[in-house]
Parts: sequence; structure tokens; C-alpha cells
Amino acid sequence: MKKIIGTTLLLLSMTVFGQAKEDSIQFSKISTEILNNGKGYTELKELTKNIGHRLSGSQSYEKAVEWAAQKLRDAGADKVWLQEVMIPVWERGKESLQIKTPDGKWKSLKMLSLGNSEGTGGKDVSGEIIMVISMEEYDKLPAERVKDKIVFFNYPFSQSFVETFKGYGDAAKYRVNAASLTSKKGGRFAIIRSLSSAFDDIPHTGGMRYDKDYAKIPAVAIGNTTADELENLLKSQKITAKLNSNCGMKAEKLSHSVIGEITGKKDQSVIVVGGHLDSWDVGEGAHDDGTGIVQSIEVLRTFKKLGIKNNHTIRAVCFANEENGVKGGVQYGKTAKDNNEKHLFAIESDAGGFAPRGISLEMDDTKRNQIKSWAPLFFPYGVYNFEGTYSGTDIYPLHDMGVPTAELVPDSQRYFDIHHTEEDTFEKVNRRELLLGATAMTQLIYMIDKNW
Amino acid sequence: MKKIIGTTLLLLSMTVFGQAKEDSIQFSKISTEILNNGKGYTELKELTKNIGHRLSGSQSYEKAVEWAAQKLRDAGADKVWLQEVMIPVWERGKESLQIKTPDGKWKSLKMLSLGNSEGTGGKDVSGEIIMVISMEEYDKLPAERVKDKIVFFNYPFSQSFVETFKGYGDAAKYRVNAASLTSKKGGRFAIIRSLSSAFDDIPHTGGMRYDKDYAKIPAVAIGNTTADELENLLKSQKITAKLNSNCGMKAEKLSHSVIGEITGKKDQSVIVVGGHLDSWDVGEGAHDDGTGIVQSIEVLRTFKKLGIKNNHTIRAVCFANEENGVKGGVQYGKTAKDNNEKHLFAIESDAGGFAPRGISLEMDDTKRNQIKSWAPLFFPYGVYNFEGTYSGTDIYPLHDMGVPTAELVPDSQRYFDIHHTEEDTFEKVNRRELLLGATAMTQLIYMIDKNW
Repeated sequence: MKKIIGTTLLLLSMTVFGQAKEDSIQFSKISTEILNNGKGYTELKELTKNIGHRLSGSQSYEKAVEWAAQKLRDAGADKVWLQEVMIPVWERGKESLQIKTPDGKWKSLKMLSLGNSEGTGGKDVSGEIIMVISMEEYDKLPAERVKDKIVFFNYPFSQSFVETFKGYGDAAKYRVNAASLTSKKGGRFAIIRSLSSAFDDIPHTGGMRYDKDYAKIPAVAIGNTTADELENLLKSQKITAKLNSNCGMKAEKLSHSVIGEITGKKDQSVIVVGGHLDSWDVGEGAHDDGTGIVQSIEVLRTFKKLGIKNNHTIRAVCFANEENGVKGGVQYGKTAKDNNEKHLFAIESDAGGFAPRGISLEMDDTKRNQIKSWAPLFFPYGVYNFEGTYSGTDIYPLHDMGVPTAELVPDSQRYFDIHHTEEDTFEKVNRRELLLGATAMTQLIYMIDKNW
Repeated sequence: MKKIIGTTLLLLSMTVFGQAKEDSIQFSKISTEILNNGKGYTELKELTKNIGHRLSGSQSYEKAVEWAAQKLRDAGADKVWLQEVMIPVWERGKESLQIKTPDGKWKSLKMLSLGNSEGTGGKDVSGEIIMVISMEEYDKLPAERVKDKIVFFNYPFSQSFVETFKGYGDAAKYRVNAASLTSKKGGRFAIIRSLSSAFDDIPHTGGMRYDKDYAKIPAVAIGNTTADELENLLKSQKITAKLNSNCGMKAEKLSHSVIGEITGKKDQSVIVVGGHLDSWDVGEGAHDDGTGIVQSIEVLRTFKKLGIKNNHTIRAVCFANEENGVKGGVQYGKTAKDNNEKHLFAIESDAGGFAPRGISLEMDDTKRNQIKSWAPLFFPYGVYNFEGTYSGTDIYPLHDMGVPTAELVPDSQRYFDIHHTEEDTFEKVNRRELLLGATAMTQLIYMIDKNW
């Protein structure tokens, strides 16, 4: 009980003592500026509608690099540069999945090959489908039951978790491992039920990995409605599936992350705010992660516009290649180390541009409790949850170097309806929700810049 | 400081002592049941797609009455009945607003007459437009400047408020009073900029009132884009507007609110959960307030499904005529009084079916603090804000009789993009957000039923 009261007193001390009034006024200025004059929403429209999806290695990714550099200059960054990084190049090409229906006809299913998956090299690969619900069920199957078959991992995305990222985490192993698990027992390719919280037929792509001990066979995703239908069919009959696809990894390529900064007035230690500039090759990469990009640029613009004198250097980083390699994040960490740059703090926005609810903190308890003590300042902006202990994928290399890291926590209810799909479009983003996320990040960076 | 610590100890005591564990398990059961098996989303689809908008007095409202009664029976209510209420009948009819452009041609503007407004009786009414931004500016205008003119109240919906209901409250007086203010100084009709947080051209209707001292002249709303264009035109030239409309009030009509209840096991004192069954006559009345209706029905279904033994009677009320009269709410309060029914508590959901963030409490401090002490139970469900002190429109008559009342507080960012418009459709509602609102209401009623 004492510990709880202690934490609570710490939490409340802001409202009673100290700089709370001044900070509260600054929070309000930041919010008013961004909600009224923020450019993030119109910039997101440019990125999604003029450039569209932008997988690593694609021409559109290179266009996005140029675009982001220009937007950082427009925002008033003192310095903008491209950071070289070698990135993997995966291409989808034409693809189709068919099943032979009871009347002997072939029927096309809406599908997407999983990202990084090898294809069939443009040839038909077919076999009988066997369905399993869970990993445990699959593990019990003898290899001879799987040999030359198509394995349908029909694990449903759980609706039970209030935070949908937990449902995603729960199901992700099927997407990541389905191909190699199938290959291990001699199957021909794998089908998974999409990691989707929606009751529709949209397939979700996303990264998968190969276990080096087994042959690289294809893996594809189908939407929930198709998965339901297939599940029903398989209850009463044998079904043959046929895949023809052309996806696969090409040679690595030189590309870039994009960085812009406002130089520190007191010292050159660095505070990072970022998102990832790449997306999967479907939809428009709006919530994943166009919103993180435009929010990060908005932070710089707001500091400049309000004339906030930053003690430390504030750097917006548009990371390359989060989706299928994290090469941008790794290169950023390596460069920071090689150049002996001191990083004070890093935050990423990569969970959608929805209304913010909190900030997840991956750092020691002293720093965590200091940020938590600012909670009353954030409360009027709908930001109240500082309980998370994870941070963004692209800034893990910084975290591993001992830098305190964080992630913006937006409301998660709609994200996995559209994540990695053709439905992740500009129209799914609400202007005010997006801008409130930028507001929360700007407010946090204002506090950290002032107090650390 | 002492007071803050005292409240905090009260707030935290739940996590340390008492029934917290048992309640936490029940909260989880409620959430899991609703997120997995809730029928609110498919029921909302029926209401919005099969019946559609349902203004008081319309045939579709009467269909909604039958539909709601059936859904309450399906949910397992012990008793379902219709409560008679006389409601106003307002009809829109054909309407058009045109302006004469610089080249002398008439151009049609997208518009909606405000709800309850009189029309032009099918005749053209025209005049020169004068624009004012604020009430203060209008008050300073001499009557001779307004006589025979069309007054364009161009007051913008403020983006500055984090809670959009504050922006709505700030601008609502223009919608409510524009006609009588214009009439008072001899103007012919009023145009208002819609109460809209969106940057689009969708006009928003909504209730207006006439001051009995002045002639009833028409008032119409235009969308933000049209308002911007008109504002620009008026900077450099005189513009004539022409209205032709047929709306107006008809004779009152007998209709019904719909009520279903699960009888109390210990006593017959009543806990109310409700929403309003009517909507404006555009769009589908999805967020306003189809969501409140299906959430209220979900509460009863969940009590039945989980076999929770309710001490008190739990009553779902689908109120008639919230939008233009609140006759259903007033009649419900009157009947409760006449029948000497004891009401323990009432909560309404009428702020959209978005992810819940809190519960607003209009009651004495003892009861308020008791509910606040349950906050840690609600936190895992994203429900954290118990600071509001208002409650739903339809349950004000109960509040005025001394009943503790409340309102569900969903995230407000998207509501005024679509409120009272053709865009308030089923597609704008997210299944999980809707069901989490029903979850929070069921959890709260479980606690109140158990502890009061």
C-alpha cells in the first residue's frame, strides 16, 4: 500500500507544485496550434494519394524519400539529409489461388502472398488441403499426413483482448512460421487465415520468415469470409488448392532513411521522433505508417512555429524498411554509435493514426516515474495510459544501446481491420485523431527537452 | 493536498481490499461475452439498413418501434411494452437554395433546412445576403441593415477544443437562434455554417427553436466548403440568395417509446439504460443514436446470457423523439412519477458508438465518489475518465426527480464530422468500438445493481 501511495503522490505532485502551470499553458499552445494549423492531414493525403504504397525497393519508395526530405525542409528543419542503407527487395508479381469446388470447377479465392514469401515461380502448385486450427494440433500431425499437402492454418484472430495488439501478437506466429512449419513436414505451401479483426474478406499480408533448415515454400493469406467458407467446405469433403505466384526476394539495393533536425540550443544531444516511410505493397500505407511520418514532421514544424527554444537537438527520422527487414532502424543505431552521438530519448509512432490514449515507456524506473509524474498535464488531451513497457520497432537498436525509448499508444480498435491491406487508405484516417497524436508527441518532447 | 490523497486512497482502495477480485472476473466475463458474441453490430445493421433514418412521426419510426420491441424480446427481457407519448411531427419536403453568381446565373448550393424550421411554403423567397461571423457582430447591426436581407451566420466550429462536444456547445446557439434573431431585425431567412468538425461540404441539420415574439422564418445550414466559397464571394461582391422549401410542423401524433426489462430478484426498484430510437431524417441515424439503442439492448442480453442475478429491475428504454422535442424522455419521467416507481440510477448512451473513454456522472458526491472508486476495474477496458458532470438528454426528467444519472462518454473526435448528416451511416461504426461501449455500460450496471 505504501508503494502505491508513494507512486500516487509522485503522480499528483505535478498538480500541486512546480512548473505545472507554465507547462500546462505550453501544452495548450501546442494543441491549439496543431488542431488548427497542423499540416499532417494534408501531407498524409499527398503521401497516400500522390505516391501510394511504397514497399522497400520500389520506385514509389524512392519518391517517398524525396517527398519526405522536402516536407522536412518545409517544416523548418535546420538540416535535412538522407542516410544510406542497404535494403531487401521483395516483389509480388501476379498471383492466384484457386480451389476445386464440389462440382469440379476451379474457383478463385481472394488472397495475398505473405511478405518475403517465395512464390511458385509462375507454375501451378497444387495439392489437397488439410486444415488445422492451432499450432498444437499441427505439431501432433505425423509428417506423412502433411507430405505433398497444402496446410491451412485456420487460427482465428481473437476478439477477446481489449487491446487488439494482444490479439495480433497471439496470432502472429502463424503468419511468421506457417511456411517453414509446412515445409518441415513435406507440405507444398501454406495458407493462413488473415490476422484480421474485421468480419470481411480482405486478406492481410505482412512479414514471414524462413527457417534456414527447411526448403522455402510459399505462404499466402486469405480473408476471414473466405476462411469461413473454406472451413465449412472442409468439414464435408476433400478440397484441392492450386497456387500460382511469382513473388520472391531480389538482390539488395541501396536506399535511404530520411532525417531532419532542429539543432539544440544548449547541446547537440539528440531526441528522436520517428515513424517508418516504407509500407507493404497494397493499399496506401496510411495508418501503417504514413501517419507516424506526418506526425513526426509535425513535431518539428510545431517547435519552429511556436518558437520553442529546444535545449537539445530534435530529430525526425523517417525510417526505411521497417516492414520487411528493419534495416533503416538498425543502420540508424549503428551510425549513431559510430559517430558517438549521444541520444537522450527516442519515440516512434507506428500503431496507427488513431486518437492517442497513452505513451508506452521502455526505460529505467527513475525516468519512467518522472514521465508518469507528468500524467496530469496529458489528461486533458485524452492521454492517460503510461503502463506499457514496449517501444517502436525501428528504435530497438537505440534501446539496446541504453537509450530510453517509447511508443505513442493510439486507440487500437480499428487498426487490425485494415492493417497490411488494400483498405489501409487515407479515407480511414480522421484528421483530428491524427493531429492529437502529433500533439501528444510534441508535448512529450517539449517536456523531455526541458527536463532531461 | 490532503483532500487529493483522501480521494486517491478511496480510488485505490478497490485494488487493495474488498470485492475487487470477484468484480474483476465478472468484468472480464462481460467483456469476453460481448466482444465475441455481442449482437449489437448486426442489430445496428438491421436498424440502419432495413429501416434507415426515423424521424418522429415518420413511418420508419413506427417500424423502428416494432423492431426494437422484437429485439428486446429476443434479448430475453421478461417484459416488453410500448409507452404512449404524443410527439411533434416535422416534415422536410422538397427544398433548394440558390445564389446568383457574378455572371448572373443561379447556382444551387447543397443545403438542409434546420429541424423544426418553417419553410417558404413552396414559394421563392430571395434577398441580398449579409454575412456576420459572430453573435456580437450581429447584435451591433442596426435593423435597417438587416431588413429584407438574408443573414448568413458564418460562425466556424472551433477545432481548438480537444473534446468536440465543447466546440458543438460553443456553436450551437447559432443553429438554435439564427431564425428568430434574423426575424427580429426584419430579415427574410437565415443561413448558418454547419456545426461540423469536417472539412467537407456536408450540411448538418439539427434542432432549432422559435422565439414566440417574432415571425417564424426559415433557417438552413450549408456545409463548410460551400460556406468557405460564399464567404470568399461576399468579400468582393453582393450576392442574392433564393430559398424554396416546404418544411414545417404538422399536427402532433400518438407514438411510443419502447421498454424492456429484466425483473429484479430482490426488489422492483429500477435501473435504466437507454438511448433514443428516433433520428433526424437524413443518413441512417447510426451513431445518433442507433448505437445507443443496440448497446442498451446488449446490456439486457448480456445479463441474461451470463445468468447474472440482478437484485433490481434493469430496464432498457428506447426513447421516442429526443431530436426534436424530448417528449419520450419527459413522458417516461412523468409515468415513473405517476406510478411511484423508485428509480435507482439511469444511464444514456447518446454520444456516438465510438470507443468508450469514461462515464459522466450527474449525482451527489457520495455516489459519485463510490463510482469513481471503481475506476481501477474499468481501466483495462479503456474507461478512465469519470470527471464529466452531465448526463443524457432523455434522462434529465429522472435527474430532476433526484435520480442519479450518467452518460457513456465515447471518444468524441469523429462525431461532429457526421452528426445529423447523410454521412451518419452504419459504415461509420466500428464493431469493436460499439461493443466496448456496451461492455462498459453492462459493467457499470453490474456494479450498481450489486452495490446500491
